Amino acid sequence: MLTFLSDFGTVDGYSSVMKGVAGGITDCRLVDITHDIPSQDVWKAAYVYLTTAGYYPSGTVHVGVVDPGVGTEREGIVVEVGGQCFVGPDNGLFIPVARSLGDFSVYVIEDSRFLLDDVSDTFHGRDVFSAVGAWLTTGVGPGEVGCETGRYEEIGFGGWSQKGGVLNGVVINIDRFGNVVTNIPSKEVCGLDFGEDVFVGEWEVPYRRCYGEVEVGGGLLTTGSHGYLEVSVNQGSAEKYFGVERGDSITIVI
Amino acid sequence: MLTFLSDFGTVDGYSSVMKGVAGGITDCRLVDITHDIPSQDVWKAAYVYLTTAGYYPSGTVHVGVVDPGVGTEREGIVVEVGGQCFVGPDNGLFIPVARSLGDFSVYVIEDSRFLLDDVSDTFHGRDVFSAVGAWLTTGVGPGEVGCETGRYEEIGFGGWSQKGGVLNGVVINIDRFGNVVTNIPSKEVCGLDFGEDVFVGEWEVPYRRCYGEVEVGGGLLTTGSHGYLEVSVNQGSAEKYFGVERGDSITIVI
Amino acid sequence: MLTFLSDFGTVDGYSSVMKGVAGGITDCRLVDITHDIPSQDVWKAAYVYLTTAGYYPSGTVHVGVVDPGVGTEREGIVVEVGGQCFVGPDNGLFIPVARSLGDFSVYVIEDSRFLLDDVSDTFHGRDVFSAVGAWLTTGVGPGEVGCETGRYEEIGFGGWSQKGGVLNGVVINIDRFGNVVTNIPSKEVCGLDFGEDVFVGEWEVPYRRCYGEVEVGGGLLTTGSHGYLEVSVNQGSAEKYFGVERGDSITIVI
Repeated sequence: MLTFLSDFGTVDGYSSVMKGVAGGITDCRLVDITHDIPSQDVWKAAYVYLTTAGYYPSGTVHVGVVDPGVGTEREGIVVEVGGQCFVGPDNGLFIPVARSLGDFSVYVIEDSRFLLDDVSDTFHGRDVFSAVGAWLTTGVGPGEVGCETGRYEEIGFGGWSQKGGVLNGVVINIDRFGNVVTNIPSKEVCGLDFGEDVFVGEWEVPYRRCYGEVEVGGGLLTTGSHGYLEVSVNQGSAEKYFGVERGDSITIVI
Repeated sequence: MLTFLSDFGTVDGYSSVMKGVAGGITDCRLVDITHDIPSQDVWKAAYVYLTTAGYYPSGTVHVGVVDPGVGTEREGIVVEVGGQCFVGPDNGLFIPVARSLGDFSVYVIEDSRFLLDDVSDTFHGRDVFSAVGAWLTTGVGPGEVGCETGRYEEIGFGGWSQKGGVLNGVVINIDRFGNVVTNIPSKEVCGLDFGEDVFVGEWEVPYRRCYGEVEVGGGLLTTGSHGYLEVSVNQGSAEKYFGVERGDSITIVI
Repeated sequence: MLTFLSDFGTVDGYSSVMKGVAGGITDCRLVDITHDIPSQDVWKAAYVYLTTAGYYPSGTVHVGVVDPGVGTEREGIVVEVGGQCFVGPDNGLFIPVARSLGDFSVYVIEDSRFLLDDVSDTFHGRDVFSAVGAWLTTGVGPGEVGCETGRYEEIGFGGWSQKGGVLNGVVINIDRFGNVVTNIPSKEVCGLDFGEDVFVGEWEVPYRRCYGEVEVGGGLLTTGSHGYLEVSVNQGSAEKYFGVERGDSITIVI
């Protein structure tokens, strides 16, 4: 499978044209992850990969284009990890998911045989990354596309800590439903049991398995589907109630 | 073909990850119906299936996840009808389309062989329904996934009646263009002929074959593409003109 | 490959049902170009094709449905050019891309064998164009679907001119990022070199290879990925700064 992720939206033809380029090179399935990443929001894109790519089968190639630096000196890279490849700009986009999947290797895209004949200065998603990604699904190895490198840009989602019953973390995503996702993996927290009440900031809520275990409109702490602690409101928005933004610190007292 | 429908939107990775899970199990084509169902709007999802699934070929499996009750006692089900299967929560979502397609059978998902190893409490779309749906495209029968049941949740779109020239029905959808779709199948109405004027509430409009038969901005009653009577404005919005909402009663005098 | 483009949005089932119809006829890959064309905006659709179809491989069939005239006397057509086919209403939608790809032929859809049994008056995207498009991917030729014609509707994106250092053109697209795309192909302009300053209206900006070559928030003229001169703001919106709309005249003094 060859997947596509970008901040191009779908009103213009940018996202589509990548599938056209790829479809001329490979017969594999072409799947959209999303093209609705907020404009130039590398963090959101990194979060989406972090929480989805692990569910794709080995052999999948992911083309990711959130690329404020297109046309500048930034390199194009292939990140290989766990039988999957990620192709796109060297701006940190793929590093959180790569770290989560295991040992990874980074290659700088160099061989023009795998690019379109005319490479524009403003649209490497089409001219470089989709073409390279498509070739990688046909048996071309990342080492044929370019040389391995130890130098690459990196972004991370911050640390978290537990000191007794006090958890300090960071809000790493707010989803469509207003669920507030932290970077605290619930399996690694000591002393947190379902059914107990906790304080999220000054807000007292129960820690529950799922939304439906509290009344409609009621708040809860839960373990989101990605394994992180998540603040939610059953059939409502914790974001609105709670007034937090991505990147904010969050303290949970258990 | 394996299709996906949800209220997850496309900004987060929820819709994508279902395709990742499925793509590791089946080689068939993966098609999005929509992920833009309004949040937790089971009725809209049921309407979309009602008006689309009949056009998919036999053998298609549909994964549908509008699931306010995830993690509670609600069952996961497979509905088999006319050579197609629908996989998702037992909340009525699939029943209108199943009734429209003929005799149907409902199975409760039970066999954990067809689920992911770790089933979360908050995302059965990924851990249960996509996996089961993918297996069903590979030759696994719904009876292998679980036992048939006669107990399932049901929703319906209400009745309609004709008394002389007075039709009483319900608004079952308002589409992107502002077309107001009723639950009145025009083929079953007596005495309604193209070209005649009718009253929709207090609004007098002609009954026409298509939008282009009235002037731009003019209202009309027509037979929508799904066979139901529909109130429209040529290149405009009948919803705005008419001020109705889904679920409202509607009276048409012919 | 079989692609789909429409103004149906994705909230209703209209875009999906076309894939259902096609999937029952052909085994080829089904790819969405976009369903987010603004309602009835034939020009935007024509622009999207103009800038994407050339990147699709020979053999691709494109189904395009932006169709204000559905149900009236307007014909359905197949446009064949460069090994690709375009299927949809005869309203000019496909002509700009066809002209850009070379000599083209237009056929009127006539043979009901390639349509659904029941053709509605309001949804030819489903009943006519998707079915015909799918058949064309299976080896059916456009000449089997109907007769060639020399009469078809046409739209164009206007002309441009250069008189000394004064370029006069038209704004043909404003994309999601606020980039203002003109109809002036930069390769055909005389005397314009990267690094020089130009006047776009009364706004003095440099002509640069890519956004990243100016400071964040700074304006520039560049050659967009489709080869046209484009007014942009690095990580900002030239549309907002500049206050233009599609179809406006634009003067660039070099």
